[in-house]
Amino acid sequence: MSDTLKHKINRQEVIDNALDYTIMSWSKQKGIDPFAIERAEGVYLYDYSGQKIIDFSSGLMNSNIGYGDQRVTAAVVKQMQEVAFISPSCVSKVRGDLGKKLAEICPGDLNRAFFTVCGATSNENAIKLARLYTGRHKIFTRYQSYHGATIGAISAGGDPRKIPVDAQQAPNFVHFDLPNAYRYEYGEENLLKDSVASLERQIEYEGPNTIAAILLEGESGTSGCLQYPNGYLKKVREICNKHGILLIMDEVMSGFGRTGKWFGFQNHDIIPDMIVMAKGLTCGYLPLGCVMISEKIASKYDDNVLPLGLTYSAHAVSCAAAMEVIRIYEEDNLIERAAEMGKYLESRIEDMKKIHPSIGDFRNTGLLGCLELVKNRETKEPMAPFNAKPDQMEVMNKVAAKIKGLGMYTFVRWGYIFIAPPLIITKEEMEEGLAIISEALKIADEATY
Amino acid sequence: MSDTLKHKINRQEVIDNALDYTIMSWSKQKGIDPFAIERAEGVYLYDYSGQKIIDFSSGLMNSNIGYGDQRVTAAVVKQMQEVAFISPSCVSKVRGDLGKKLAEICPGDLNRAFFTVCGATSNENAIKLARLYTGRHKIFTRYQSYHGATIGAISAGGDPRKIPVDAQQAPNFVHFDLPNAYRYEYGEENLLKDSVASLERQIEYEGPNTIAAILLEGESGTSGCLQYPNGYLKKVREICNKHGILLIMDEVMSGFGRTGKWFGFQNHDIIPDMIVMAKGLTCGYLPLGCVMISEKIASKYDDNVLPLGLTYSAHAVSCAAAMEVIRIYEEDNLIERAAEMGKYLESRIEDMKKIHPSIGDFRNTGLLGCLELVKNRETKEPMAPFNAKPDQMEVMNKVAAKIKGLGMYTFVRWGYIFIAPPLIITKEEMEEGLAIISEALKIADEATY
Repeated sequence: MSDTLKHKINRQEVIDNALDYTIMSWSKQKGIDPFAIERAEGVYLYDYSGQKIIDFSSGLMNSNIGYGDQRVTAAVVKQMQEVAFISPSCVSKVRGDLGKKLAEICPGDLNRAFFTVCGATSNENAIKLARLYTGRHKIFTRYQSYHGATIGAISAGGDPRKIPVDAQQAPNFVHFDLPNAYRYEYGEENLLKDSVASLERQIEYEGPNTIAAILLEGESGTSGCLQYPNGYLKKVREICNKHGILLIMDEVMSGFGRTGKWFGFQNHDIIPDMIVMAKGLTCGYLPLGCVMISEKIASKYDDNVLPLGLTYSAHAVSCAAAMEVIRIYEEDNLIERAAEMGKYLESRIEDMKKIHPSIGDFRNTGLLGCLELVKNRETKEPMAPFNAKPDQMEVMNKVAAKIKGLGMYTFVRWGYIFIAPPLIITKEEMEEGLAIISEALKIADEATY
Repeated sequence: MSDTLKHKINRQEVIDNALDYTIMSWSKQKGIDPFAIERAEGVYLYDYSGQKIIDFSSGLMNSNIGYGDQRVTAAVVKQMQEVAFISPSCVSKVRGDLGKKLAEICPGDLNRAFFTVCGATSNENAIKLARLYTGRHKIFTRYQSYHGATIGAISAGGDPRKIPVDAQQAPNFVHFDLPNAYRYEYGEENLLKDSVASLERQIEYEGPNTIAAILLEGESGTSGCLQYPNGYLKKVREICNKHGILLIMDEVMSGFGRTGKWFGFQNHDIIPDMIVMAKGLTCGYLPLGCVMISEKIASKYDDNVLPLGLTYSAHAVSCAAAMEVIRIYEEDNLIERAAEMGKYLESRIEDMKKIHPSIGDFRNTGLLGCLELVKNRETKEPMAPFNAKPDQMEVMNKVAAKIKGLGMYTFVRWGYIFIAPPLIITKEEMEEGLAIISEALKIADEATY
């Protein structure tokens, strides 16, 4: 049997088993044509077909150190030879080691780690803890944000993925608006002033002492990298201080170097009361989440029972993977690298704007970036609107198909194309990816007027 | 430096780091004296102090194949050398392989796996899906049950762990009662009749067509192994069929051989519409959860978008660990073994009853078992009541301390002592553990009248 034939047979079986015996997320089950991945290395995925695919959204914006790094495998094996799982009421060495390392990385008195399994369970626990600690019930969050899909986390989020399960919402989440600066008529300074004033009014309407926490992404991610106006998070921190409201930064997507700093909020000169982590914490090698909690909050539970817990809290193998991943960030200078490559990306997009009239805006912090496509730069008419319906996605679906066909995996959502590759990406790999996007943009350019 | 001294130094540092830089679940932070585990093998944990500890509750009732099985490590390494993480919109070989294997194990048309990260996220997704599929909003669950700690899952549960976060509950969970047969005055047949009639009345009060699903544990776990009366689950299945209500069995604790069958519900001759899995699925080696979904339900999403998803869905390494763990269950005949050892345990507890007047009741299915201690067998006055306050735990705290001091890790809760060791346990190891419990029971015996 030829290698090609063997590949073809395997590939079809891989896909058939996945579609026949599992169920695919956020999708219809019929008519799916997924990549079937045989191996992954660096910024590349390799399909069973032999196709080499460049990953421009780092899996789900989490493969920050890239794929296939066998240093992580070595750390995992070592841990599994000692202790894999123990009850979280017992302690393993790696549990404290990782807690200590995270306390070093985190600013202020954010020194206490509550380990979970993912971003959603981290947000759930941060929310529960904020309410327990303050004795207040409301959580303020932003429209156009995402915090996970469990019932608490999806209610916290302000993304339309919640709309199909709207009837299932948990109570006492209040959403506020922070408009997209690109589409705000009065300029960034006024956006800052107006959105802070709007938030302050909404807090007064709701009653400041009913509000446990404001929960915000460290930087906006899948909502379209909708950047905070300069100074916004400092104002939010001041508002929180004034009213005894906790500030929780969800760094699930923006954390661990993605924005050129360990955490997105460090681009805004603030310190939150809790940091929600997952994704880049282990770069997907194993599932792990964490809430870093300030000493001030944690000390309440010296003499009170902390009524939070989960089976896999502080899973020793996941903790070992995180320890190694953090060592790799440091050893390979990936945080600085993300900042540098972010700058390089910005300059290259400036070049691309000159030849692609469909690029309306590019927004990024480091390597968390997103193109917003328009039909016309003057009118800013979107190539596809917010929460676009299928018939509004005609052009963008063609763009997405072209990107996929040319051997790239990345998020294309509404009128957005995400550019958030692994932080290890080289200039050559960046050029390879941008050339694919440039080719696909020709389809969008044709739809401009 | 002597080995003993080295151990002592390491041990204190391990504990200090864990307590200084992390936060412990379900506990005050001060005055904790956890086991510090250096390695684990079979049914034993080894503390840095050199103490050898027998584990009679399998970690959190999940280490079914025991600790330190390096066959799982080998499977994990192999997978990590190929693909560790990929976006769940792509497919890996192991995803489909595990889905297919689970479909083989599960009865009926429960053929479609939706992979999650843990029991709570599995229950959350089963609940969301039941509501989406039926278009109804209420979920019926049992008091004295546990389904996880996320906001949806803790609201579903009927365990007092929810009381501290009662104000945070998600809506539309309705709880019903199924009394403890040991404390029911009118015998098991009447318990069946009365509890079914009570459930039927409550369904009518709430309105049958407002109810999406009844969610029940495959067998009761940490609530005290409160067994279903013979025929109860068949009646529940009939009620569900009559009203178009889905039946979801939460097999997180009772699944994967724990009760002497693959799933607890298989002791009751029913087939549910969804099975919720975690714990024994990977035996804790790596975090993984799963909802097995009937073809009938899954097929609705052939042409409708399934609005569910999470970053680590179908994590390739976790799936590989599960594949190997399932192979081990089969190769080592652990399901049958659990049934046999359960019978052996029952006979040994009968012997112990003769010398320990504090044993009021022993309830088990296979190796999911629990002693209920009483002050007096006639009056059945509990050694500690349901949701006992600290001052009601005086005797039981001494019993628990004795068990720990003698080198056993197990759950002691209220008046219950859990006996749920790894399924690989030998008769000799069982005797060793029962001897420790017997010694500790002397303290309880002294409190009888």
